Parts: sequence; C-alpha cells; structure tokens
Amino acid sequence: MNVTKEDVILAIDLGGTQLRAALIDASGQILSREATRTDVVGGPDAVIEQIAALSQRLLSARPSSKIICAGISCPGPLDTHEGRTFNLATLPGYDGFPFASRARERLGVPVVLEHDGHAAAYGEWKQGAGRGFDDFIYLTVSTGLGGGAVVNGRLLRGAGGMAAHVGHMTVVPDGPLCGCGNRGCWELFASGTSFLARVRQRADIDHWLGLKEFGREFKSEDVFNAARKGDLFADEMIKIEGEWLGLGIVSILHLFNPKRIVIGGGMSANFDLLLPGIEAYIDKNAMAPFRNISIVKAALGDNAGLVGVSFLAKETSHRKGQ
Amino acid sequence: MNVTKEDVILAIDLGGTQLRAALIDASGQILSREATRTDVVGGPDAVIEQIAALSQRLLSARPSSKIICAGISCPGPLDTHEGRTFNLATLPGYDGFPFASRARERLGVPVVLEHDGHAAAYGEWKQGAGRGFDDFIYLTVSTGLGGGAVVNGRLLRGAGGMAAHVGHMTVVPDGPLCGCGNRGCWELFASGTSFLARVRQRADIDHWLGLKEFGREFKSEDVFNAARKGDLFADEMIKIEGEWLGLGIVSILHLFNPKRIVIGGGMSANFDLLLPGIEAYIDKNAMAPFRNISIVKAALGDNAGLVGVSFLAKETSHRKGQ
Repeated sequence: MNVTKEDVILAIDLGGTQLRAALIDASGQILSREATRTDVVGGPDAVIEQIAALSQRLLSARPSSKIICAGISCPGPLDTHEGRTFNLATLPGYDGFPFASRARERLGVPVVLEHDGHAAAYGEWKQGAGRGFDDFIYLTVSTGLGGGAVVNGRLLRGAGGMAAHVGHMTVVPDGPLCGCGNRGCWELFASGTSFLARVRQRADIDHWLGLKEFGREFKSEDVFNAARKGDLFADEMIKIEGEWLGLGIVSILHLFNPKRIVIGGGMSANFDLLLPGIEAYIDKNAMAPFRNISIVKAALGDNAGLVGVSFLAKETSHRKGQ
Repeated sequence: MNVTKEDVILAIDLGGTQLRAALIDASGQILSREATRTDVVGGPDAVIEQIAALSQRLLSARPSSKIICAGISCPGPLDTHEGRTFNLATLPGYDGFPFASRARERLGVPVVLEHDGHAAAYGEWKQGAGRGFDDFIYLTVSTGLGGGAVVNGRLLRGAGGMAAHVGHMTVVPDGPLCGCGNRGCWELFASGTSFLARVRQRADIDHWLGLKEFGREFKSEDVFNAARKGDLFADEMIKIEGEWLGLGIVSILHLFNPKRIVIGGGMSANFDLLLPGIEAYIDKNAMAPFRNISIVKAALGDNAGLVGVSFLAKETSHRKGQ
C-alpha cells in the first residue's frame, strides 16, 4: 500500500552534556523528542552515530514520518558556510571537522549546521518571545553567555556566519583570561558560572548565613531561593549580577538599537529577580533615546534551539532546491 | 526655451564647526561644493536658513541643475524615522526639533535626516573602501569615535535608526563619565581627543623632549611626525592608541563578524602608524577564526558623509514615490 508520508525535519541540539533530537513539522511544532548523553570521548564520528541512532528511534515511533532535512545546533565558533566545526571549548576533537557533510552522508538528507545561539535566537523569533520584532537580541545566560541577533528582519550571521558572540565583548581591559583567548570578556562577569563563583567568594568574606543552610557547595538556585525569603546578602548578589548583565546590554543597545531583548538559559529561571538590576543599570547608563527597551524572558526554554534550527534547515534546503 | 534640467541631490553635512553642502548626481559624483561656519548660536532655525543659502549659491553656479531631494548628515542621536534631532552634544537647542520636516518646508523637496556615522558608512560602502563588502564596519576616529555598519548587504539602522553607536560600548566598568551619560565608553579611550589627552599627560611625566620642540600645546600631528622621525616615546603612545582601538575592534569582530573594517576621521591620516598596534591586539585577543580581517583606511575622506547621504536621500525618495 502506497501511503504518503508526512514530511518532518530532524532537529539536533548538540551540547557538551546532552545530545537532543526532535522531529519537527514545517510549522515548527515539535512532534517527538529523544535525548542521550553526548559521547564526548568518542569525538564527532561517535556523535554522528548517536544522531543516526536517535533519528532511527524517533522514526520507529512515527513510521508515518519522513525526514526531509536536518538541522544541527552546535556550540561555536563554526564555519556555517562550510558546515565545519572549529575548536569547541566543551567538545574536544572537533577542530576542522566537516560536520555537516559527514552527517549528510550518514543521514542521507541535507544537513545545516548552525551556532546554538543563532538557532535559539531564530526559534524565539519564529515562535517565541521575539516574534514580530525585526530588531531583537537573544541572550542565553547559563554556564556561558551567548546569543543571537535578528536585524532588519534577518538573522545576523556576519561574513563567516560567526556574528553575535555577545559573551566575548571586552568589558574589562587586561581582565582575566577567557577560554576564547581574549581577556575580560563579558561572559567572565555575567554568566551563571561567574555569578556562582562571585557569590561563593563573597559568601565566605561576608560570613553568609546561607553557608550554614546550604553548605559550601551551594548552587545558584539556593541563592535565588534565599533572596525570595528576604536574605539581603543574596539580594545584593543578584543585584550585582543584574548590573553586570546591564553593562553588556547597554553596549548592545548602543550597537544594535533593538526593540526587544529576550533572555533565556538557566539563569532566566529567575528572570524576575534579575530584571530590576538590569533595568536600573540601563536607566542610569544608556543614552536616553535607547532606554525604551522591552526585556522579557525567553518563551521556548530548552526547545528554542531545536525549533530554530528546524526552520533554518527547512529554509536552507528550500533555497538550495530552487 | 524649454530646457530639461539635470536632476541632482543636495547633500548637507552638519557639524559642530562646519556646515558643508554639495550637489551630487545620481551616480554619487560630487558636482560642486560649498561650506560655511555653522551658526551654532542661532540654533536649528538659523542652520536651516544657512542650508537654504548654500543651496541657492550652489544652484546659481549650476543653473542647469534641479534639486530633486536633499539628505542631511547630522551628529546623533536622531530619530531618523521622524526626522527629529535629540539633544546633540556639539549643537545646543536641537532637542526634539523636527529638522527634516522644517528643512523640507524651506527647501521644497523631500529631505532625509541621517546619522553622520551611518551616512559616511553608506558612502564608503557605495563608493569607497567598503565597496563590495556586504558585512563591513566603518569607524570614524577623530574628536569622537563613531561609525556605521552594513550587515547582510544593508545599512544597520536598528529599531529606532540609532544603531552602531560604536563609541559608546562600555570598555571600562565604573570608568570616567562620558558626555552620553554612560561610564567608561570606548570613545573616552580611543578617540583622537583621548589620544592627545593621554600623550599630554604622559609627556609631562616622561619628560618628553617633544615638549621642547612643539611646546605644551602640541597637536596629535606633532606626535605622529615625531614617531616618523624615530621618537620612541611618540611611538609607544601610538602603539597604546592602536591597542585601545584594537580592544573595541575585537568586540566588534566578535559581535558583527565583518569581512572588512574601514577607518576614517582625522586620526586616519596616520592610519599606517596606527595599524600595527591594532593588528597586534587583534592577533593576541580575537578568537582565531575572527582574526582574518581586512582593516583599511577610508577612501572618501571628508566626502563620505556627503556621498552617503546623497544615496540615502535618492533611495528614500524613490521608495516613497513608488
């Protein structure tokens, strides 16, 4: 019996810990998802086998679906034109690897490789908190600090597809060395990792009572919870984090003049506590005409990259098919 | 006798010192120019009268020309959609002034108001050192530090037409207060004004022999000339200036991933001496895939803004006429 199968897009989110896969329809709806622990030691060849296995599992559960193309969201920097990975901080063995063409050979469909920040920005623009904003910036604040930009109604890629590495603006000259090779990057002061390191350092100095309650290995979430219960030290630490975020956002406002900024990533779970510090910094420091900015929490959570890369894969293969 | 007149564009470059006007043809060729001292005290109404007078003078000398539209390049921030000026640092009395509509009433042709940085970037893109580069950044390093960006083959305006205020990226947290209201702006460390202030300060401390040769009121040009004659202090100061320029350019590379950067403004007269410091900083600090960047001197000099705003005026009135 000859049944017409439903066209779907295979979306992959490759992270240093988790490898996630989804089947997504042309309208951006997630039909099904799978995840596994990234085979970091095995390198990119092993990860491509993992992707193929996830793809098989997804298709077995939806035999009526047919994968027409695939999009892979991946940490940068990448050569998105060539579909090649560079030296990735969290994934050793990827330098110069032709990821897109190898994945294409293995999967048998066109494959697009995209920066995770760009993919998530595109997802939020198409379906999330950036919808309808032709000039918007997406920030992901978690272990690192990344993002993506939509300008003039298009994803900002730059000449080599590597634009919007927002976490690597220099905010402190001769500051600490960043994993990227630069010094004093914004990421070193405003990421979730930096927030936790700063609080741990100050907690000792300030004899924070939370040390007794949560232990020395307390997490960011403990700090936010303490603040919600009225802890003044936690409150102050969150205010400082908001100011560091605000400092980079002021530069972003002056450079991109966006209409909206969307904040995602792990730290955005406590967006409501961070926003006052961010807004206070902007009100004090941004040039007056730039202060009228809407800053909101991301809407798609973990799925922004999967949704975004599915749209990018579909649009790219459509363009190439013309 | 009914003679067909040649269509030309009136281009205006409004600065805190000089008011310049040109007649420019549709291909961007400057046909004639006039200039006068800006009537700063008289405010925007007086300047519009000056523009009308310059326009009359230009037309008197070219009676075969007919002005079809006008473009005004103006310091920012501006509301380019509304054609309105905000509080301009170098020109008092402009806050909220509907410059474009008043100029239109006086001149009787459609008028476009554009940031001077954007206008110059557009000029360099259309006719100068940015030609053929769909992702390029223009920097003007003189009294201040401004610029413009072309991304995806279009001028980056942002939601309010105020993008690319590159000089107001924060590079030193809690740094000195900038005229814009922010602290630690790049302009405060890398503009021509900052260069000269730094050299004057250090010249005293280092007992620079140039103080005897040039006097205490020496100019930037004296420092560059001394370096050309082998003065090591001058050389070191220029290297530091190159590094401050490099610091902001590294952020620009990571954010915009351009293929070319074009440097104009007064300081670009000594571009050859500044470039080594800039390139050394980039080689040391930019992420490896971003280091492959072409940095060149602007090609149009003082005329970039006039040429650029003539193209913008022509394209805008063409679009509105459709």
